[in-house]
Amino acid sequence: MYGALFGFVKNMKNYKILSNIKGPNDLKDLTKNELEILSAEIRKKIIEVVSSNGGHLASNLGVVELTVALHKAFNSPNDKIIWDVGHQCYAHKLLTGRFDKFDTLRKEGGISGFTKPNESNHDPFISGHASISLSAACGIARAELLKGTNNAVIAVIGDGALTGGIAYEGLNNAVGLSNLIIVLNCNEMSISKTVGSFARHVSTMRSNQTYISTRMAVKGTLDKIPIFGKLVKNTIHNGKKKVKKILYKSDFFTELGFSFLSPVDGHNVTELTQALNWAKQTDKPALIQVFTKKGQGYFKAVENPGLYHGVAPFDIKNGIEFINTSECFSDVFGKELTKLAEKDDNICAISAAMEHATGLIYFKSKFPDRFFDVGIAEQHAVTYASGMSSNGLLPVFAVYSTFLQRGYDQILHDAAIQNEHILLAVDRAGIVGEDGETHQGVFDTAYLSSIPNITIFSPCNYKELRGMLRRALYYTDGVVALRYPRGSEYDKLSSYDDSYKDYRIIGDCDKIIVTYGRLLGEALKAQISLLQKGIKVAVMKIGKIYPISNELLNDLKNYREVYFFEESIKSGGIGEHIASKLLELGFKGKWSLSAIDNKFIPQSTVNSALESLGLNSCGMENKVLANQINKKHMLAERG
Amino acid sequence: MYGALFGFVKNMKNYKILSNIKGPNDLKDLTKNELEILSAEIRKKIIEVVSSNGGHLASNLGVVELTVALHKAFNSPNDKIIWDVGHQCYAHKLLTGRFDKFDTLRKEGGISGFTKPNESNHDPFISGHASISLSAACGIARAELLKGTNNAVIAVIGDGALTGGIAYEGLNNAVGLSNLIIVLNCNEMSISKTVGSFARHVSTMRSNQTYISTRMAVKGTLDKIPIFGKLVKNTIHNGKKKVKKILYKSDFFTELGFSFLSPVDGHNVTELTQALNWAKQTDKPALIQVFTKKGQGYFKAVENPGLYHGVAPFDIKNGIEFINTSECFSDVFGKELTKLAEKDDNICAISAAMEHATGLIYFKSKFPDRFFDVGIAEQHAVTYASGMSSNGLLPVFAVYSTFLQRGYDQILHDAAIQNEHILLAVDRAGIVGEDGETHQGVFDTAYLSSIPNITIFSPCNYKELRGMLRRALYYTDGVVALRYPRGSEYDKLSSYDDSYKDYRIIGDCDKIIVTYGRLLGEALKAQISLLQKGIKVAVMKIGKIYPISNELLNDLKNYREVYFFEESIKSGGIGEHIASKLLELGFKGKWSLSAIDNKFIPQSTVNSALESLGLNSCGMENKVLANQINKKHMLAERG
Repeated sequence: MYGALFGFVKNMKNYKILSNIKGPNDLKDLTKNELEILSAEIRKKIIEVVSSNGGHLASNLGVVELTVALHKAFNSPNDKIIWDVGHQCYAHKLLTGRFDKFDTLRKEGGISGFTKPNESNHDPFISGHASISLSAACGIARAELLKGTNNAVIAVIGDGALTGGIAYEGLNNAVGLSNLIIVLNCNEMSISKTVGSFARHVSTMRSNQTYISTRMAVKGTLDKIPIFGKLVKNTIHNGKKKVKKILYKSDFFTELGFSFLSPVDGHNVTELTQALNWAKQTDKPALIQVFTKKGQGYFKAVENPGLYHGVAPFDIKNGIEFINTSECFSDVFGKELTKLAEKDDNICAISAAMEHATGLIYFKSKFPDRFFDVGIAEQHAVTYASGMSSNGLLPVFAVYSTFLQRGYDQILHDAAIQNEHILLAVDRAGIVGEDGETHQGVFDTAYLSSIPNITIFSPCNYKELRGMLRRALYYTDGVVALRYPRGSEYDKLSSYDDSYKDYRIIGDCDKIIVTYGRLLGEALKAQISLLQKGIKVAVMKIGKIYPISNELLNDLKNYREVYFFEESIKSGGIGEHIASKLLELGFKGKWSLSAIDNKFIPQSTVNSALESLGLNSCGMENKVLANQINKKHMLAERG
Repeated sequence: MYGALFGFVKNMKNYKILSNIKGPNDLKDLTKNELEILSAEIRKKIIEVVSSNGGHLASNLGVVELTVALHKAFNSPNDKIIWDVGHQCYAHKLLTGRFDKFDTLRKEGGISGFTKPNESNHDPFISGHASISLSAACGIARAELLKGTNNAVIAVIGDGALTGGIAYEGLNNAVGLSNLIIVLNCNEMSISKTVGSFARHVSTMRSNQTYISTRMAVKGTLDKIPIFGKLVKNTIHNGKKKVKKILYKSDFFTELGFSFLSPVDGHNVTELTQALNWAKQTDKPALIQVFTKKGQGYFKAVENPGLYHGVAPFDIKNGIEFINTSECFSDVFGKELTKLAEKDDNICAISAAMEHATGLIYFKSKFPDRFFDVGIAEQHAVTYASGMSSNGLLPVFAVYSTFLQRGYDQILHDAAIQNEHILLAVDRAGIVGEDGETHQGVFDTAYLSSIPNITIFSPCNYKELRGMLRRALYYTDGVVALRYPRGSEYDKLSSYDDSYKDYRIIGDCDKIIVTYGRLLGEALKAQISLLQKGIKVAVMKIGKIYPISNELLNDLKNYREVYFFEESIKSGGIGEHIASKLLELGFKGKWSLSAIDNKFIPQSTVNSALESLGLNSCGMENKVLANQINKKHMLAERG
């Protein structure tokens, strides 16, 4: 049935059932048949909106029935459902009063692509980074017990997210939380294919279908009797094969103190509801293992769930077409690293479940033995790299700026103190756009530059990315970070190549705009526009953004007006480092620093965010102009 | 025998065997009897030096035989041994050429209390923070395989360190590393008693003694056959009790892809050596589980391993005496929080395996239901707190500054974005002294202040700690950090109470020394001393160190000379934030910023470190004086 769904929903004229669901209560009395239609309508809506706005597709299609069952079995918002990662929450949003606004998904001012407490009281917790749901749920569930309200708290976590260390810390601290229910959603792949022994262990737990009935039969009492004894009685006579298949594989969670139920068909609302009701009754934390298919209901997504994980707008009928899209920074990085690795056996590449998005797929296909996908495990990735470096290899960890936050202690303690030479390829550095607050890559400048012995490069185009990659690997010591933005280079910047210079000054004047990375394009535009207004400014582009060279500071201190711009947090960013040093050098000119000032940046396009932050050419121009006007005023007043 | 060891070693005249061990090769041919004497001599030396210098005692006494067996079975430094945490490396240091220098343990310029690669090539990796050994060992082992050198890599990790998420990420990525050996040292407690379901699960794996012989008999071949089948054959006839005891408990690591051997007596060199040799032969990563007793050989430490975990100098004969030692910041915090919790049911306290050291023991004993020790799991602790807060509680996580580094992403993503009101009680903030590079609490100012919505307080004495605790809990929104140093308040500062003021200026002059926390004591000393030399300076003490109030900036910008001092990293610290804002405000005076400039601070006393950083009263005085002399010179030159 689901395989043909796409054809089926195409002929639906409207959202007969879905449009009447104003909240979870409205689905409580629906019949089995109505719930099936509701599920189909949800899928149709998700495909429709995501194909138009972009967003997460495969994961959301996989959890439609699970979401329906959750809202049937529980009473949100009293009972609290936490999605890990939050990007699988689209069906949840459609069932909790956000159907009417769903067309604004991921648009500026619209519905977030993740759960967001200030959007709805049905979203009890934020979840843009993976693996945190168990810890959050433990805290929320503990609060229920301490307050005596005892509502259920449900964490839905995929087998992929379970590769993150914090998920394990959460599992490890769940004992005693009788109102906690963990739904382990095994879809046999996270963003890339789930890696690691534990995921394999868990996925082989899928055993025969009779098991669930046996378990369900004894319901809440099951966990009150010695489980091993009971199950031995039931199954030992079936021979060791069955013992192995069922008991042997299922003891881990039971031993950790959970009431454990598996397997549950994740596309069967009735079975799911039964299982969830069982979980509600147990007097221990419950863990139920459901099996779903990513992309369920849209055959193109089922065939290639990786491709349909996070998507740009596409045509529903034809699916994502492999037209020759323009190259992006990630591709250039991945290809150049592969090229360097041809001549250098020591180069190894590490990914945290992101081999496609970071461009490492090129490296992997050429050097599979030197490529390592460690799962959603940024902490391990950094320390693993550091271990490799300590034993003579040249490791490169490519990772999004926002996810590298999780490796802060490891970069500092495991790499920088002993000055290991590892390369952090910091992708999606700067404003990322539609993913919003939880994904902006605007903190790495601050957290990385707080660490001694580190060097940070910021290329403004592909040429510099290639050059700085070599400089970082072969002409720089210790921990090196190479940070570059999401997307493509600006055409007009493509001729620059200052990979081996720390900085360059363009133009000659006593006023200067200082910036780095892709904002150089904005600075040059502002420079031209200001010139047309009769105001000359120089532009400084910085390539090695940390540590700042003394030459740069000595040059800069002679300017009368310095305007610094960065798409980074202000507090602890590059601008503040320079300001502090200039002040120490006795700089007496005018200093202006534009960056992100003590706030999180919500979803919008990149351009719109830069505009509202005053970081586009127009904002730069205005900063300079405002000062000229002020000066004129002052002169006029004095005159 | 071991129970009486203390008496035995007392009569040893010298280190007959130990003093002749210049490296691991020297113990290869020792007899069983000689190895026993060697172990006793190692214990004697450790007790002798730790009782005089302070350091880690119980953990080191627990692994003496294990260390001897490791150096007998393997060839360090070709084979690489990684200790997790590194503070259990004393016996290792004594056997790897550092016996002669061992008296300098933890002294300035002396032997480090942790493994340290630049101290010896027998220390392949640093390890001051727990749980990282598996990830580091994976990287080092992978390098061996890729280089074709194939040396063995051994990680020794305690059951306590296994509660950290990164350890699990490491376990999860060990597949395929045939040269990796993990020694899981179960001593049934980490710094506090090990918590969490997983540790309990692992510790119950201790089964009957015959098991090891069965396993050893099949040696390297064991892992080549389906383990379950084999063990079923061996044991199924013994009935389900034995099945449960042995098979059932041991499948986890086997399923993860390890050759698994347990239990091994951790105080029997012969059995340990056999087990390690078995592990060497297997063609999968091996995991052997040894059981040891913390404090073994010094009965006082065996009786109370928590007390003898990290110790100040003590008398060997009498042990640590509970004299009425002076109160420290941690105690004051713990007691005050307990007092507040009497009137506020919402207050909960969280510890990451540090209930004693953080002073939370007072809270725990009074409110056990609201106290949560989550194990060495700082990531979970932060997100757990955030979950609690999102559901109406008032959580307080007390943690060392250096260990909170591991929660950076969680503070930012799980707490700050949704502006949860959680309190981070940041203990050991600032220079910590003898533990050295890996433990200095000098980064929290930078990494915390990079996060939007955060507020940071820094009390200068106990009174302010108490006041600011109230202010943080009841008069501040969002994430709040309260940072205070290791040790006691300065008597001379005890009268101040500016808990509810953001800052205070002491004295009236156009020059000013600005600082916060305990450095205020140094600033006031410098103020007096300068006055005696005829130079008047004011002193500004800041209490709310982030965000910096506009009033403070407006006051400060009128000074002609500003001297800022902080025992924190310079890059991204409070001084830079102020400098940048002053520059933007058009400040034209002299600015001087003294902090830790792009380096790690090695072990020494706190006073010695402050002195060498120019952060004591003398350093402050000199900064001010230097500028007066410069000015005189300039005037003279002009004249």
